[in-house]
Amino acid sequence: MAYIVDLRSDTVTKPTKAMKHAMVNSALGDDVYGEDPTVNALETKLAALLGKQAALFVPSGTMANLIAIMVHCNKRGSEAIVGDSCHIFKYEQGGAAHLGGVLLTTLDNKPDGTFELSDLERRIRGSDIHEPVTSMVAVENTHNYCGGKSLPLNWLDELSALCKKHLLPIHMDGARLFNACAHEQQPPSRVVRDCASVSVCFSKGLSAPVGSALVGDYHFIQQARRIRKMLGGGMRQAGVLAAAAIVALDEVVPLLELDHKRAFRLAKVIEGLFLKPFSVDVDNQHSNIVLVRIAASSQLTADKVLQRLAQVSLSETQGDCKTTDDEGVIVKGTAFNEKTLRFTLHREITDEDLWLAIMKITYVFKELGQ
Amino acid sequence: MAYIVDLRSDTVTKPTKAMKHAMVNSALGDDVYGEDPTVNALETKLAALLGKQAALFVPSGTMANLIAIMVHCNKRGSEAIVGDSCHIFKYEQGGAAHLGGVLLTTLDNKPDGTFELSDLERRIRGSDIHEPVTSMVAVENTHNYCGGKSLPLNWLDELSALCKKHLLPIHMDGARLFNACAHEQQPPSRVVRDCASVSVCFSKGLSAPVGSALVGDYHFIQQARRIRKMLGGGMRQAGVLAAAAIVALDEVVPLLELDHKRAFRLAKVIEGLFLKPFSVDVDNQHSNIVLVRIAASSQLTADKVLQRLAQVSLSETQGDCKTTDDEGVIVKGTAFNEKTLRFTLHREITDEDLWLAIMKITYVFKELGQ
Amino acid sequence: MAYIVDLRSDTVTKPTKAMKHAMVNSALGDDVYGEDPTVNALETKLAALLGKQAALFVPSGTMANLIAIMVHCNKRGSEAIVGDSCHIFKYEQGGAAHLGGVLLTTLDNKPDGTFELSDLERRIRGSDIHEPVTSMVAVENTHNYCGGKSLPLNWLDELSALCKKHLLPIHMDGARLFNACAHEQQPPSRVVRDCASVSVCFSKGLSAPVGSALVGDYHFIQQARRIRKMLGGGMRQAGVLAAAAIVALDEVVPLLELDHKRAFRLAKVIEGLFLKPFSVDVDNQHSNIVLVRIAASSQLTADKVLQRLAQVSLSETQGDCKTTDDEGVIVKGTAFNEKTLRFTLHREITDEDLWLAIMKITYVFKELGQ
Amino acid sequence: MAYIVDLRSDTVTKPTKAMKHAMVNSALGDDVYGEDPTVNALETKLAALLGKQAALFVPSGTMANLIAIMVHCNKRGSEAIVGDSCHIFKYEQGGAAHLGGVLLTTLDNKPDGTFELSDLERRIRGSDIHEPVTSMVAVENTHNYCGGKSLPLNWLDELSALCKKHLLPIHMDGARLFNACAHEQQPPSRVVRDCASVSVCFSKGLSAPVGSALVGDYHFIQQARRIRKMLGGGMRQAGVLAAAAIVALDEVVPLLELDHKRAFRLAKVIEGLFLKPFSVDVDNQHSNIVLVRIAASSQLTADKVLQRLAQVSLSETQGDCKTTDDEGVIVKGTAFNEKTLRFTLHREITDEDLWLAIMKITYVFKELGQ
Repeated sequence: MAYIVDLRSDTVTKPTKAMKHAMVNSALGDDVYGEDPTVNALETKLAALLGKQAALFVPSGTMANLIAIMVHCNKRGSEAIVGDSCHIFKYEQGGAAHLGGVLLTTLDNKPDGTFELSDLERRIRGSDIHEPVTSMVAVENTHNYCGGKSLPLNWLDELSALCKKHLLPIHMDGARLFNACAHEQQPPSRVVRDCASVSVCFSKGLSAPVGSALVGDYHFIQQARRIRKMLGGGMRQAGVLAAAAIVALDEVVPLLELDHKRAFRLAKVIEGLFLKPFSVDVDNQHSNIVLVRIAASSQLTADKVLQRLAQVSLSETQGDCKTTDDEGVIVKGTAFNEKTLRFTLHREITDEDLWLAIMKITYVFKELGQ
Repeated sequence: MAYIVDLRSDTVTKPTKAMKHAMVNSALGDDVYGEDPTVNALETKLAALLGKQAALFVPSGTMANLIAIMVHCNKRGSEAIVGDSCHIFKYEQGGAAHLGGVLLTTLDNKPDGTFELSDLERRIRGSDIHEPVTSMVAVENTHNYCGGKSLPLNWLDELSALCKKHLLPIHMDGARLFNACAHEQQPPSRVVRDCASVSVCFSKGLSAPVGSALVGDYHFIQQARRIRKMLGGGMRQAGVLAAAAIVALDEVVPLLELDHKRAFRLAKVIEGLFLKPFSVDVDNQHSNIVLVRIAASSQLTADKVLQRLAQVSLSETQGDCKTTDDEGVIVKGTAFNEKTLRFTLHREITDEDLWLAIMKITYVFKELGQ
Repeated sequence: MAYIVDLRSDTVTKPTKAMKHAMVNSALGDDVYGEDPTVNALETKLAALLGKQAALFVPSGTMANLIAIMVHCNKRGSEAIVGDSCHIFKYEQGGAAHLGGVLLTTLDNKPDGTFELSDLERRIRGSDIHEPVTSMVAVENTHNYCGGKSLPLNWLDELSALCKKHLLPIHMDGARLFNACAHEQQPPSRVVRDCASVSVCFSKGLSAPVGSALVGDYHFIQQARRIRKMLGGGMRQAGVLAAAAIVALDEVVPLLELDHKRAFRLAKVIEGLFLKPFSVDVDNQHSNIVLVRIAASSQLTADKVLQRLAQVSLSETQGDCKTTDDEGVIVKGTAFNEKTLRFTLHREITDEDLWLAIMKITYVFKELGQ
Repeated sequence: MAYIVDLRSDTVTKPTKAMKHAMVNSALGDDVYGEDPTVNALETKLAALLGKQAALFVPSGTMANLIAIMVHCNKRGSEAIVGDSCHIFKYEQGGAAHLGGVLLTTLDNKPDGTFELSDLERRIRGSDIHEPVTSMVAVENTHNYCGGKSLPLNWLDELSALCKKHLLPIHMDGARLFNACAHEQQPPSRVVRDCASVSVCFSKGLSAPVGSALVGDYHFIQQARRIRKMLGGGMRQAGVLAAAAIVALDEVVPLLELDHKRAFRLAKVIEGLFLKPFSVDVDNQHSNIVLVRIAASSQLTADKVLQRLAQVSLSETQGDCKTTDDEGVIVKGTAFNEKTLRFTLHREITDEDLWLAIMKITYVFKELGQ
C-alpha cells in the first residue's frame, strides 16, 4: 500500500480534533431564525477581525462570491470587472451571468495576481445607453491561479483610489485571505481596508470541513442574507460548521506560515534541480501554492508528470522514495493547464510528508527532465 | 425563567447524540472531488430507499427544489406548474424565476394539498409561439401550508397518468416525505414511485443539523451536480453533515409516528374545547403539523394568540401551566397568516412537553375564545 | 374564389392611405440618437393624451409590457401580480421570468377582466426573507381574454387606493386602451390616471402597421429606454412607423366606436338565434371583441366551428351566404380555447362584410347547433 | 445656417425614393401569423443570398445578435467567446448575460478584427464541473471598432476548422456583411459559408429605415422565432419595413463600393497632411469606416477635435471651408474613445459632401495638429 502525500489542494484538509470537539459541544439553534449562537459568534468574530460591520456564513466560497456580485450589481445591465485568471471567472461556471444576469468583463491578470490599473480605467464604462453599467471590481487575494500571490498593498491602495474616483466598490475574493495576511505580515483589517466586501473560506488552508463567509457593512450583509436564502444557502443548525470555523481562526491561522515555509522549501528544491523543462519562480513564492511551469519546448505535459508521481513502483527506485520496503509514496498535485503543475501545502502535510514528497518529486523530475 | 415548548417548526430540532458521534467519527474527504465516503454513503442509501438511481446532498431544501426546477426546465421560456400554497411558490423568494428564468404557474391548492387535475390539464400549454413551454409539475408531500397533509396515493397515481400523457416530469418536494410515508404506511419508494425527482430534507423532523438531498436518475443527478456547483452548494468535507443525515434515516425516521400521535392528541384537545373562534380539522390530521384556524368573525389574530402564549405570568394562572413555582411555560408557534396558527411536533417535544403545551394552550384559548 | 371576412384579430388591419402618405412624407432621423422628429412627435403627443410625462415607441406590445415589468421590478427577487387571463401571463412566453427574472403571481380574473381586490391584498408579500418582493400590479384594459371588457372606473379607483396603500405601482396593458376609453366615454388621461405606466398598441384596432408605446414619468421612461436598447428594440428611422401611429391616433381612434357597434350587432344576432350550444353575453358586450361560448354539454369544439366557417361550398347553401354565384364567404375567427370562439371587429370590416359574416355564421351555427 | 456633413454613422441614412415607393406599395399581412408576403419574400431572398436555409426579420442588429446567442447557448452555464472590441461585448449592454444568462468570454481583438486562434483554443473550456460550457464563437464582419475591417477569408477558414474540431458553432455579426463582401470581392454565401448563423443589418449602409435579419438553418430559425417573440420583436405588418430592405439589397448593396472609395480618399488625404498627432492606417483601409488615431503624446482628445469640426465660423477661415458666404460646413464624426475618431461614409455622402468634409477636416486638423 502506498503512502499518499496529497498536494492537490488545501481544500482536502480535514477538521482538527479541537474542531470536532467544538462541533459537538457548541450551542446550536435555527440559523434561519437567526438563533444559532455559534453562527452568530463566528459572524461577529470575523467581522471584527476584518474591521467590517457584519458577516454572513455561507456553504461555499463560490456562493460568497456570487452573492457579493449579485448585491453590488443590482442594476439591470450591470457589469463586474475581474481578472481573467480569477476564480470567479474561471471556476464558478459563469454563475454571475447565468444566475445573476451580470456581465463579467475581464482584465489580463499579471503574474503577480494584479492587473494594470490603466486597463481597468479604460474598461470602466460611461453612461451611454449602449453600454452596461460598471458596478464593481473584484480581486483575488491570494491569487490562486497566479500561484498563491499576495496582492501588494500599495497596488491595492492605488486600486482603491481609482475605484473611489469612479464610485466602484471592490470585492475581495479572500478565499485565502489569511495566507495573504501571513505573507504581508499585516492584520486582515489592513489588507481588506478598502474593500466593500470580502469573502473568506474556512475549508481551504484553515481546515474547517465546510463553509465560507461574506463580510461587509450592515446594509450589504442584509441584502446578502436575502440572496443567500434565494440561492438555498440558508442552513439550519449551521453552528456545527461555524464551530469548526471559529476554531480554525484561532488554531489554524497562526500555522499558515508553516505551510508557506514548506512551500518555499519545495520550490527551492525544484529550482535547485536545474532541470530545463521545470521552472519555479522562487523569488515570488508568497504562500502555500507552488507552481511548476513546464517549458513550452518540452514534450512533457502536467498530466504526464502527475501520472508518474502517482505510480508506486518506479522500477529504478532503490529505496530513495520509499518509507519502508512495502510502501511507495504517491504525490498528488493538480494540473492547472497543459504546462502548469500546482502543489499546495496545507496543515496535514508535515515536515516528514514534505521530505517524502521532495524525494519522490526529485526522482520523477530528474527522470523526466533530462 | 420560563420553560419553552417550541412548536414553531421541526426545523429547530438539534442533532441527537448518535448524530454527534457520527459527525466526528465518520470518514471524510473532499466532496467536490467526489471523495467524501460519508456523503457517498448517504447518497447511495437514500437513492436505494427511494428506489431511484442516484442522489445529491445539498445545503437546503430550497436549493434542492431550485436545482430540480433548473434541470427539468432547461428550455428557454419554460414553465413549472405548482400549487399556490406550496413552499416553492410561497417561501423560496421566486428563485425559480429570478435565478432559473422559469415561470411558475400556480393551481389552487385544495385543503388536502392536492389540486384539481382538470385545472392542471387546462393549464398545460401547447406549442404556440406566444406561450411558455410547460416543462414540469411539482407537488409537496406532506404539504406544509395545508397542515402537513399527506397526498393521497390514488391522487398521485392519477396525476402520474396525466403527466405521462403530456410527457411532464413530476418533482416531489418531499421535505417531509418520511412523514407522508409514516401516515400512508407505505415505503418511500412507493410514494415517490412516479416522480422524476424528489427532494428530501434531513434538518426538519429528521433532526439532522443541516442538509437536504435531491434524488432522481443518473442523468438528472449529473446535471443537478453542475447546477449545485453553480449555485455554490458544493461543500468540501460535507461528510460531517451527511453522517448526521445517515443516522437520522436510521434513528429518527421510525420515531416520526410519535410526532404524528402527539399532533393528533393536541388537535383533539383543541377541538374538545368547543371554542367558537378556534377550529382544528381533526378528521384530516395526517402528520406532525396542527393548524388552528381562527374564525373570520373573531377579532383575534394569530399574532395576538401567539403573543399571549409567549407570556409567562398569566395573572390568573394558579399553577396549572407552571412546572414549578418559579417557572412559567411559553408555547411558541407560527402564524401562517392572520387567521391561521401552526403548531409543529418534533423529536424534541416529549409527552411531558406536550402536556405542558396543552395546559398552556387550553388556558389561553379559553381566555381568548370566550 | 372565396371572399374572406377576417375576424381573427384587429392586428390584421393594414395601414390606411393617410398612414401610407405620412410614412413616406414625414421627417426622419436616427432615433437611437434621439433625432427622429416623427418619433419624438408621437411620443410627445401620446404622453400628453394620456396625461403623463413621457413616452417611448417600441416594436410591440409584448416588449412594452416586458420593459414595464423590468423597470418596476428592479429589485432581485421581485414579483409582479397579474390576472391569470391577462396577455402578460398567457401570451408573452413567460418573458418576465425568463428575461427579467421576475416572478408572475396570478389572481383569478373575473369575467369582467377585474380580480378580487381582497385576493390582491392577500397576495401582497411582506418583508420576510423567504418571500419575493411584491413590486407591481398589472391590469389589462380592455381585457382581451375576457372578451374585450373595459375595466370599470370605480374598480380602477379602488385598485388604485389599495396599491397606493401598499406603495405598489400599477401598470396598465392598454393594448386596446382606446377601445376602453370609447366604451367608458372617458378621455384616456382619466382611464390611466392612477397608473404608473401604460402600454398602448398602434397595430391592433388602430390599424398602424407596427408599433406600441410605453408611457410613464420621465424617470420611468429613461430607464425604459435603456431596457429597450438591451432587448434590441431600438430602431433607427422609426419615424416611418411612428408617422402611421400619429395618423392612427387622429384618424382611427374616433372610428373605434363603429367597431363596437358592429360587434354588438353580431353578438345580438348570435344571441337571437336561440341555439343551445352557443351563448354570447350581450349584456356585457363592451368593445370590438365578441366571445361565443360553446356549451360544455355540446360535442362541438371551437376548432370544428371555425373549420366549418372556413369551408366555401356548404352543400346545403342556397345562395344565402354567397355574394355572387362563384364566390362563397369564409369567416375567420380565433379559438381562445376548446369551447370559446373569438370574433374581432376592426376598421377593415365594413357593414357589408359584417352582413356577410352574419349570414355565414347564422348558417353554420344553425347547422351545427341543432 | 451651416451645411452638415454627417459622418457619425451609416445608420443615419434615410430611405431612398425606391424604398419609399416599395414601402407603400408592397403586399402586407400579419407577420405574427406568418402572413406578410413581403417579410416572407425578404427572408427567402436573404437566406438564398447567404446560402442558408432560412432567415428571420427583426427590429435591430442588437436583437439579432442576442437571439443568436440565446439559441446557440441553450445549456445552463453556457459561454460565448467573442472579441473584446466587438459590438456584442461593447455596445449591447451585456444583454447576453442579463437577458440570456450567457457568460461572454473575450479574446483580444487584433487591429484587423480577428483574434489569435491559439488564444481561442486555450479559452475553450473542458467538461469540468467548475467551468461554463463553451457553446459558440462570434465574429464581427466588417469589424466596426477595428475600423471597418473585413475579416480575411483564410482566417475565417482556419477559425472554421478549429471550431469544427471543437463542435462550436460560429455566429457572424454581419451588420456590415455586404461591406465585407464588397471588399473581398466575394459573394456573401462565400464569406458566411462556415457560419451557423449570421446577422445582417439593413439600416446601416444599406439605408433602409429599420431592421436586421438573422440567417441560419431551419431548426435554428425556428428557435429564433420563439425567442424573437419573447423579446417583443414580433411585428405585425412588418412588410412596410421589409419592403425597404428588399430594395436595399438590390439598389444599395452595389453602391457600397463607392462608400469604400470615398473612405479611402478621405483616409489618403488625412495621411497626406503629415500631421504628427493624427494617423490613419491607409494600407488597411477596407471599407466605409475611417479611423483617425490621435497620438498619445498629443494633448488633443477626439471630443475636442469633434467640437472644433462642429464650429461653423472659424475666424481664420477665408472661404476654404465654406460653400457660400453665409454657410459654414459642419463635419460630424464619432469619438470611439479619447484618442480615436471615426468617420463613416454612406450613401448620403456625395462626392461634393466629401470634398466639403475634406476641406473642413484639413483646416481643423492643420490648426490643431501643429
